Order: sequence, then structure tokens, then C-alpha cells
Amino acid sequence: MEHLHSEDGLRLLKTRLLAMAALVEERMQLAVQSLVDRRAELADRVIVGDAEINDLQIEIDDRCLTILALQNPKATDLRTIAAVMKINADLERMGDQAVNIAEHALKLVRLPILKPLIDIPRMAEMAASMTRDSLDAFARRDAALARRVLAQDDEVDGLKDQLFRELLTYMMADPGTIERALALLLVSRCLERIADHATNIAEDTIFMVEATDVRHGRENPAAGGGVAP
Amino acid sequence: MEHLHSEDGLRLLKTRLLAMAALVEERMQLAVQSLVDRRAELADRVIVGDAEINDLQIEIDDRCLTILALQNPKATDLRTIAAVMKINADLERMGDQAVNIAEHALKLVRLPILKPLIDIPRMAEMAASMTRDSLDAFARRDAALARRVLAQDDEVDGLKDQLFRELLTYMMADPGTIERALALLLVSRCLERIADHATNIAEDTIFMVEATDVRHGRENPAAGGGVAP
Repeated sequence: MEHLHSEDGLRLLKTRLLAMAALVEERMQLAVQSLVDRRAELADRVIVGDAEINDLQIEIDDRCLTILALQNPKATDLRTIAAVMKINADLERMGDQAVNIAEHALKLVRLPILKPLIDIPRMAEMAASMTRDSLDAFARRDAALARRVLAQDDEVDGLKDQLFRELLTYMMADPGTIERALALLLVSRCLERIADHATNIAEDTIFMVEATDVRHGRENPAAGGGVAP
Repeated sequence: MEHLHSEDGLRLLKTRLLAMAALVEERMQLAVQSLVDRRAELADRVIVGDAEINDLQIEIDDRCLTILALQNPKATDLRTIAAVMKINADLERMGDQAVNIAEHALKLVRLPILKPLIDIPRMAEMAASMTRDSLDAFARRDAALARRVLAQDDEVDGLKDQLFRELLTYMMADPGTIERALALLLVSRCLERIADHATNIAEDTIFMVEATDVRHGRENPAAGGGVAP
């Protein structure tokens, strides 16, 4: 790997992480589109394209270790690299969830339509917006934006529960719907996991910016600015 | 945090990670037992005890950053600390899965028994054994053992698919079983995720020991020893 001045290496690292994020966001969007528009070829693209995401993950991890070994970063830079390593792992797993959604989509396009998809695209839009915001927060070192991401996670869970009850009603009323309803249920769990990963990214960003650990409700809002009401 | 000689700090870090692992393993076992034996009080213990796991995660992360900042570790030590940071995150999420299983158990104890649980405890035993082996591999720097963990992941997926088909049959035959079957289905997904985390730990261990990246099938078996047949 090329040797660079300390700041250049870190700047390049962030650029690569954001390239990874853009790729993962595109794949998540494509997976949901394949489900909603019933287009198998889009799902195939998501599945085949996962290798590219995996390669980027390995490259970014390598860059982190190189910078740690050669430049002995301190304080803010060290926290930034720790955040990049964690965010990198979250992004790779978000890519895996896009693949899972694509696989459910491939199953569903072969079956008749169960119901017009309304909640799934809404959940997907929320998960995508949390992902975008968490990465913008990372890129701009904006802890306030990261806190707004944390506040959105409950909304996603609410939609997930609502969809669960609706799908349960379908299944109870007509066993012929069970297979399709189950696939949609599992898609909603994939979207929930994507939102969870976005939450992780937001938490790592806050820690990077403020060296305050907000994970697991440990934060003292009086000291740190708090979550928007 | 206390200042220690380089080797002591690293040894203590590993000890704390293994303490975290023991706690998570105990919680996973308790969650499955609460499901199998229909004992709500065990599920409650898992849910309440999650805070302890979360605190340990934060402590271990802090130790990693302190060692990185103060001791500028190189080569093997650096890869060890990177592995600890990732394994730590995986363990915390395995603890979250134990909580999810406990929540499903609380729901199921209030409902009549659907079927004798055979596949779920088998899946749980596999996931637990993968977890134990991956952490033993980390502790003993045993890449061969870590490779055996990777080979087991397909078995867990096989059991999951088998259980899925069986539960689908129940649901189709009698809509009165749907709610319970769904809860068991979601438990099997939690166990699958635990096995996935164990796989991550095994991969991070191999990278730590050999500086070979086995993630995403990049490994060249001819060069690295390969997976046991």
C-alpha cells in the first residue's frame, strides 16, 4: 500500500469508506426496487455485486491497520480510525441484508401479488434515510445529526410491529397467503437490521466526535446536548 | 485506566474479552433453556442482565483505544487488538440475540405447546459449540480450530431451512398454530445470527494468527492449510 503523509492517509481512508457506503446504499435501494417492481434482474445484480462490497471492506480494513502501524495516531485520529473499522463492518453487513432482500424478492416475483406494498417501501425509505444521515454525520463530524438518527430507530420498530400484525391477519384468514406473507415478514426483519446498523454508525460517530459513549443509554443528556425532542 | 507494561495490558485485554464471552455464552444458554423448559424467570434474567454485557463492551473498547494510543503496537499485537475490537462487537450483538430469544420465550410460555422442541435445541447446541470453538481458537491462536468453525456454518443453515419447512407445514395445516410457529421461526433466525457472529469471530481469529484474510472466500486453500474435508 502507498505511503502517505498522516493527514492524506486519513483523508483517503474516509473517502474510501464513503465510497463503500454509496455502494451499499445503492444495493439496498436496488434490492427494495426489485421487490416492489417485481424485477428479478435487479435482484440478480444485487446478489452478484456483493463481491465488490466485500473487496472494499478488506481494502478499508487494511488501510486502517497500515495507518495504525505506521503513524501511531492519537486522540481524535485514533478514534476516527476505530470508528472507520466498526462502520466498515456495519456497511458490509448492510450489504448482506440487501442480498437477503434480493433473495426474498426472487422468490416473491414467482408468486402472485399478496397486497400492494406500502409499509415495506416506507420502512425501506426510513432505513435508507437513517443510513444516509448516519454517514453524513460521520463525514461532517456532526453529532447532532447522528443523535437524530438514534431517535428514528423506534419509528422503524413501530412500522415493523404494525406490518407483523397485518401479515399475521392475512395468514390466519387464508393459509394460501402464508408463504408470501412469511417472505415479506423476513424482508421487514432485514430492513430492521439495516436500521440497527445505521444506529450503530450514528453511535460510533458520536463517540468519534465527542469521546462520549452513547451506546446502551449511558449518555448523560445534560452533559452532551441530548436527543432532540 | 491503569497504566501497565505492554504485555500485561494485552493479556488483561484478552482476559476481559474472554470474561465477556463467558457471560454471553451463559446468557444464550439461559435463553434457550427458558424456551425449552418454559420458565419465564430464566428469560427475565437474560433480559435484565443485558446491561452487564453492554458495560463490559464499553470497558473493553476503552482498553483497546488506551493500548493503541499509549503503546503503539505493531504487527501481531496490532492485529490482536483489531481482532478484539471486532470480536467485542460481535459478542455484544450475540447478547442482543439472547435477549430476543428470551422475549420470544416469554411469549411462548403463555401459549400451549406447539410441538416438542427438537430442532431448536439442536441448532442452539451447534451455535453454542461454534461460539465456544471460535473463542477457544482466539485464546489459543489456533487457526485450524477456527477453520473448523467456518465449516459448521452450513450445517446451521441446513437445520434452519429444515425447521422453516416444518413450521410452514404446521401453519398451512392449522392457522391456530401460526402465532407460535412464527415465534419459533424467529427464534431460529436469532440462532442463525449467533452462528454468523461465531463465524465472524473465527475469521477475525484466522486473520489475527496468519494475517491471511479468509473473509468472503478470498483464501487460497493451497497456501493456507485449507478447510478440513
